[in-house]
Amino acid sequence: VGEQGVDARRGPVAVIGLGSMGLGIAISLLRAGFDVVGVDSNPLAVERFKASGGRGAATPAAAADGAVAVVTVVVNVLQTRDVLFGASGAVPVMPASGVVISCATMSPDDARGLAAEVESRQLLYLDAPISGGAIRAIKGELSVLASGSPEAFGAAQPVLIAIAQTVHRLGDRPGIAAAFKVVNQLLAGVHIAAACEAIVFARRQDLDLVKVYEVIKGSAGNSWMFENRVPHILAADYSPRSAVNIFTKDLGIVMRLAEELKMPTPIAAKALQLFQMTAESGMGLDDDASVARLYAMMAGIDLPGISEDQNAERGG
Amino acid sequence: VGEQGVDARRGPVAVIGLGSMGLGIAISLLRAGFDVVGVDSNPLAVERFKASGGRGAATPAAAADGAVAVVTVVVNVLQTRDVLFGASGAVPVMPASGVVISCATMSPDDARGLAAEVESRQLLYLDAPISGGAIRAIKGELSVLASGSPEAFGAAQPVLIAIAQTVHRLGDRPGIAAAFKVVNQLLAGVHIAAACEAIVFARRQDLDLVKVYEVIKGSAGNSWMFENRVPHILAADYSPRSAVNIFTKDLGIVMRLAEELKMPTPIAAKALQLFQMTAESGMGLDDDASVARLYAMMAGIDLPGISEDQNAERGG
Repeated sequence: VGEQGVDARRGPVAVIGLGSMGLGIAISLLRAGFDVVGVDSNPLAVERFKASGGRGAATPAAAADGAVAVVTVVVNVLQTRDVLFGASGAVPVMPASGVVISCATMSPDDARGLAAEVESRQLLYLDAPISGGAIRAIKGELSVLASGSPEAFGAAQPVLIAIAQTVHRLGDRPGIAAAFKVVNQLLAGVHIAAACEAIVFARRQDLDLVKVYEVIKGSAGNSWMFENRVPHILAADYSPRSAVNIFTKDLGIVMRLAEELKMPTPIAAKALQLFQMTAESGMGLDDDASVARLYAMMAGIDLPGISEDQNAERGG
Repeated sequence: VGEQGVDARRGPVAVIGLGSMGLGIAISLLRAGFDVVGVDSNPLAVERFKASGGRGAATPAAAADGAVAVVTVVVNVLQTRDVLFGASGAVPVMPASGVVISCATMSPDDARGLAAEVESRQLLYLDAPISGGAIRAIKGELSVLASGSPEAFGAAQPVLIAIAQTVHRLGDRPGIAAAFKVVNQLLAGVHIAAACEAIVFARRQDLDLVKVYEVIKGSAGNSWMFENRVPHILAADYSPRSAVNIFTKDLGIVMRLAEELKMPTPIAAKALQLFQMTAESGMGLDDDASVARLYAMMAGIDLPGISEDQNAERGG
């Protein structure tokens, strides 16, 4: 336990937003010995965290009262602004030199704007978008893209150690980490859409999709997303690990930023349209691999799951 | 040395097409003890192979005379058809039960058509598109996607062992391997275009591109192509390891097949247009990472190489 930064002895840590990522973060902090107060607009999520041994609160202000660090793990900049500055927001009750660790994906401008508001209250702000998924979140093995002042890094460090396997320290100003995250999401979104297009194209040719998966995984056509999402399609399991609506949001951020920068991003634009078509077809809350179901609908073909027998053979 | 298949003692092997992939294949066969005759429309390529210890010939027919296996490593189906059946083509001079190992990327229909013609002459045909690049070709470590009759596999096996690290045996009919390769090329092409879009988008935001490369490589936005091609952009080195024109060709095959199958492939269509724009801007013979230069031109920004100093720091 170092001399500087958040310390379990100095005060509680608040986690605002207890979805799969926020819950994982909150549990990792508990495991590291922090006094953790969780809050979510969904009371069931708070109950779930309390069942894991955490403390719950009814509002961001109640959670953040006296907290030396507040981790916001909500969906976007609007929700982040609301939980920090809205009615019952966290910022007014935080003690001086407390740190806001902001994890939502947002535009660099939005991250800079939030940071300026937070810093004007004598608080610290770390721009800290996360990735890794729910399983790594609960293990404390997230990847964090982070930028902010040395003071913000210093204050956030014990929290980062508890929740992350890798912290990419990307610069000393908020907004830089957000920019890296947006670049990553451009690629991630395009690769999901491309994986869905390719798998349905393969299905249309009557290829054995399990073999296609194995061959492509070992070939130049592979991507992290192909490897991760295609098993959802093979299993016909569209329960949301990450929902279609996350990518309509994130590719929307890409497109607005690209427009401001006068930078053409035609591939991202096409991928966004596919996520939008999938969402507006009624699959917005389903797993993002549902883009494959949109393609199958458009091509007028079935996209069956792998049979039980084949799953058994594969040890699944 | 087995009882079946091509054997160095039974007759020469012809390699038709001595570009970087064909040359690597021919040299790997030499190393395995085969009597190899190489031919290429470019006399300098033949001289290069002769300097490596191989035998050269002036025409496919001269190379294939008495050859128990003919490996065609030309650009497309038209060239493959020409070297097999054109004036001075290989097929008429091959001994009965000789095997044609066809490596060019082409549509499944084209592969089936060629196979039928070859098989009608009492010869064997293996549909055998390759991947792995020039360096793995010369090491005998290619990845081969293969389909064909058991007899064709039997006859080709010693050649495959000499040139490949992995042989994916995908079915007992020509055309299946071609279909797998086309699916792979859809993804590979989209991922190159997406990598170029993302890197220029990052540059437009003044991010440190070396850091972007390192961060994305370890994140969900990674792809085999991102990892492989972005270093060309960082080094501003567009000498062709694989040229833009390869992907206008291969994504063209994707689009024609998709149209026949009435299967929409909007992402591949957009990627094809970007390769076409890059080619028609005068970069068709340059490295396929040149799509990044197209994006930089479109966005009106510089895309400098990493400076000498930075390369030195990185051990490059």
